[in-house]
Amino acid sequence: MTNRTAPVAFAMQRARTVTVLGVRRSTVLTLTLVLAYALYLCAGGLVFYHIESPEEDRYRQTVAKHRKAFLDRYPNVEDEALEELLQLVVAAGNRGVYATRNATGEPNWSFGQSIFFSTTVVTTIGYGHVTPLSQYGKGFCIFYAVIGIPFTLILISALVQRLMVPVMAFLEYLDIKFGHRLGALSIRLLHVTLVGAFVVVLAMLIPAVVFAYLEPEWDYLDAFYYCFISLTTIGLGDYIPGDSPNQQYRPLYKVLTTIYLLFGLTLAMLVLSVFGGIPELHMGHLFDLSSDDLTMDHEKVRLNQNKPTDHRTIIKVSSRRDLDDDEDDDFRP
Amino acid sequence: MTNRTAPVAFAMQRARTVTVLGVRRSTVLTLTLVLAYALYLCAGGLVFYHIESPEEDRYRQTVAKHRKAFLDRYPNVEDEALEELLQLVVAAGNRGVYATRNATGEPNWSFGQSIFFSTTVVTTIGYGHVTPLSQYGKGFCIFYAVIGIPFTLILISALVQRLMVPVMAFLEYLDIKFGHRLGALSIRLLHVTLVGAFVVVLAMLIPAVVFAYLEPEWDYLDAFYYCFISLTTIGLGDYIPGDSPNQQYRPLYKVLTTIYLLFGLTLAMLVLSVFGGIPELHMGHLFDLSSDDLTMDHEKVRLNQNKPTDHRTIIKVSSRRDLDDDEDDDFRP
Repeated sequence: MTNRTAPVAFAMQRARTVTVLGVRRSTVLTLTLVLAYALYLCAGGLVFYHIESPEEDRYRQTVAKHRKAFLDRYPNVEDEALEELLQLVVAAGNRGVYATRNATGEPNWSFGQSIFFSTTVVTTIGYGHVTPLSQYGKGFCIFYAVIGIPFTLILISALVQRLMVPVMAFLEYLDIKFGHRLGALSIRLLHVTLVGAFVVVLAMLIPAVVFAYLEPEWDYLDAFYYCFISLTTIGLGDYIPGDSPNQQYRPLYKVLTTIYLLFGLTLAMLVLSVFGGIPELHMGHLFDLSSDDLTMDHEKVRLNQNKPTDHRTIIKVSSRRDLDDDEDDDFRP
Repeated sequence: MTNRTAPVAFAMQRARTVTVLGVRRSTVLTLTLVLAYALYLCAGGLVFYHIESPEEDRYRQTVAKHRKAFLDRYPNVEDEALEELLQLVVAAGNRGVYATRNATGEPNWSFGQSIFFSTTVVTTIGYGHVTPLSQYGKGFCIFYAVIGIPFTLILISALVQRLMVPVMAFLEYLDIKFGHRLGALSIRLLHVTLVGAFVVVLAMLIPAVVFAYLEPEWDYLDAFYYCFISLTTIGLGDYIPGDSPNQQYRPLYKVLTTIYLLFGLTLAMLVLSVFGGIPELHMGHLFDLSSDDLTMDHEKVRLNQNKPTDHRTIIKVSSRRDLDDDEDDDFRP
């Protein structure tokens, strides 16, 4: 260990900061990233605008036409009175309360639906097809999420840890099978691809078949879109299983959907964990202030690349310092 | 390094698996966790049911009363015809298309709104007040999220890395100031509490004042609820800034809200990073299969506690094996 100190000190002396036009390279890269991100958002906006705008116009015209047809059919109905009613209906609909008759049979806040709502809050899916109406409900929702979101993360992490045992055994298997022909990185890429594909099939493609079959108004794309939007926790809430008017066994269906969501999120986290275990794929170090400092110490550079984010390094150093007040100095690199 | 091999081998021989009633302790703890989680969801469901159910009934009755009043006022209107119109209006409202006149001025899928939608997709907030209507839109939404969500994570991580420099300097400051009186863990807890409080004030309490002022129909709880639900990425979408009918400078307002969301999410991630840097707070190792194996090697036990999740350990061992085909064996513990 002692023979290492000299070259490190030597490297520190020779450290040099990489700059681009007088600005640190990592700062230039970070600004480029921010710019690219802004462009990505604008490009997305442009595409959605072009795809959805005509569709929305069509939909809007259909609604306006029906409204007009209604007024034509009942000429004594004042436009103002209808407008007032529709405003109330739309406002109520936005809060999940429907003015139509067939929807009144099933309350939004039945016990089963309330559990489903709780699940979508703590998983951060948040469909929002049903939302708390009262001030107490909103307050409790905040309190419930403050405890529930970390709870969900702990649960899913614990399950992911267990699933990692067979998944890493599979990596070992790939290593034994292809190790003589492929490099370590190639094997890991093959591994994450296969695990990812398996999860997409198991958590999205197959459940989408089931939802497309069970939901009367969903085609396969709708069902797949629902699975994808849910398991990424985007949760737009435009498609919700079990909400069709004549749904049979609705409470059971909702409970099974809840279990599916937790199972799917666990698998999604599993893929992220496998992906996160490949240091070569982390790009974080590029935007990292410490990456600008060139040293002659190759070991140090290699270790930096190996560590996904610099703040973790800082934390580790700090916490290690706190902990290592005892004997085993020979462990520290 | 060589004098370490003997005690390790000795410890391996003496390894003992901790069991509870014949089942591995970590399995018992994991099952307990699953059960506790199920109970937490049920308890949440019960509370929401009790708080929201009467509120919903009241709301539903208001809507039904207005509907009845409308039919009473125009007795020639057939209930069936009104039902048909309302069904269309509700269905359109669920997809973000409103049948009321004052809403028709501003399309949902204007360019500005489309950018706002793009942002809520890639950040996984997903309010869902506006959703893609066409099959192409849904397909593009999936594609856009597949690239956009990792992109957002990379951007936010890069920004968090930079913010970690002052935040960790603050930890150093606390350490110097209170290090002689408080233990290392106490200082870290103080640090994460202060950083967390600062972020809650900066990203939620202060913006909520602004939103409560700008939005005509929001009180302070509504505004805080909006900030909280957004920055946790739950995104219920019951409150959306800038959607009031006579909103001035709507595009500018939406862009500023977008920037606020990205800024707030970065700060939220910062707190998570600071929290994640305190190994003593990780409970993951309790549910970990390897935690059942008692050895006499205190060093090994301590290191296990220090590592948040076992799969990371496995990955690191595996990737380290791949990388360490060169000389520096003296680094490996």
